[in-house]
Amino acid sequence: MRLRNVKNAKNIIEECEYVVKWDSKNLKGNWETIFGNNNSIHLEIGMGKGKFLHEMAKNNPDINFIGIEKYESVLVRAVEKINKEPLPNLRLICGNAEGLELIFNHEISCIYLNFSDPWPKNRHARRRLTSPTFLDIYEKVFVSELLGGEKRIIQKTDNLILFASSLKNLNNYGYIFESVSLDLASTDIPNVETEYETKFKSQGVKINYLKASKK
Amino acid sequence: MRLRNVKNAKNIIEECEYVVKWDSKNLKGNWETIFGNNNSIHLEIGMGKGKFLHEMAKNNPDINFIGIEKYESVLVRAVEKINKEPLPNLRLICGNAEGLELIFNHEISCIYLNFSDPWPKNRHARRRLTSPTFLDIYEKVFVSELLGGEKRIIQKTDNLILFASSLKNLNNYGYIFESVSLDLASTDIPNVETEYETKFKSQGVKINYLKASKK
Repeated sequence: MRLRNVKNAKNIIEECEYVVKWDSKNLKGNWETIFGNNNSIHLEIGMGKGKFLHEMAKNNPDINFIGIEKYESVLVRAVEKINKEPLPNLRLICGNAEGLELIFNHEISCIYLNFSDPWPKNRHARRRLTSPTFLDIYEKVFVSELLGGEKRIIQKTDNLILFASSLKNLNNYGYIFESVSLDLASTDIPNVETEYETKFKSQGVKINYLKASKK
Repeated sequence: MRLRNVKNAKNIIEECEYVVKWDSKNLKGNWETIFGNNNSIHLEIGMGKGKFLHEMAKNNPDINFIGIEKYESVLVRAVEKINKEPLPNLRLICGNAEGLELIFNHEISCIYLNFSDPWPKNRHARRRLTSPTFLDIYEKVFVSELLGGEKRIIQKTDNLILFASSLKNLNNYGYIFESVSLDLASTDIPNVETEYETKFKSQGVKINYLKASKK
């Protein structure tokens, strides 16, 4: 993600009512209150400039969406979108995936991983968002099976190393593959494009797609 | 597979002592006798011209290998190889994958699927060698878990539709992925190339690889 400084990024983010402040005490277990309903909650990790999540939230008013992004300089782009077109079922937050269990307590039913950092070197494999380290974290974040919870990960990436690694890790962790494609554009899978995806597609890059769920 | 007529193909095949005649009565349950030992048996379905299997058999004298190929005009190429360089742990057979359960009774521990016909159209998906239809057949062919059996499928293909379909089907059938790559040449996975693979690689085509096992 290219980080270009946006003037007053900090102010724009702080003043937006759709941005939730990272506060492990008041968030964990309280997302129903924050959204004002008990609709299921979908989370995008590394939301980037927010096009995907904004469109998803607009198309699915009965689902709540949260986007997490670690860079303020990127997050501000998503904030600008929601300021322009507010959506009651969308919240943004600045933070790290490593800390998800600090702000969620079995409240998420779907995680989107769009064009995540591939960490292609073997020695960095643990940092990939589908490594067993992160799958362990997601278990604490996903709704409980006992409550009829649905746990689903939907990944898109152009990176072959990341995708192969995701396929192995999710399979080994007990996820059931609902849908797999190594060339998303050639399928009829419903798809909302991210900013990157639109660019990649125009260059003929093939997009890999995995939808997997777990009991 | 391009089918070029080889003069006397039928004769060459019939005269080769390493070619086993399809005979459901005498083969099923008798492969230990045919090989003269109880080493584990690996099967390549759609062996083609036999380069891969010949080299595998040569490199692994303690494993027995069987290659099955439906076209005599292709099989004859593999026969020529074994006539030139006989290997006691290799047998060839002319036949169809649909009939595997007629000639094997829980005797195979590994199946290789190299560049199988992708059957890319949805309406032909059942014909793919990793469709649930074939996975059911393989269950009858694979050594029994009760006898400490190992069941493993190793697939290579350049075709994205076939590979995506294999990933989903094997995952859904309970296979555990031991190794996945979407660009085999970039990995350090030990690999014996097939005739096709060598050609594909020289054209820069990426090879997909899956090694999966099941209890």
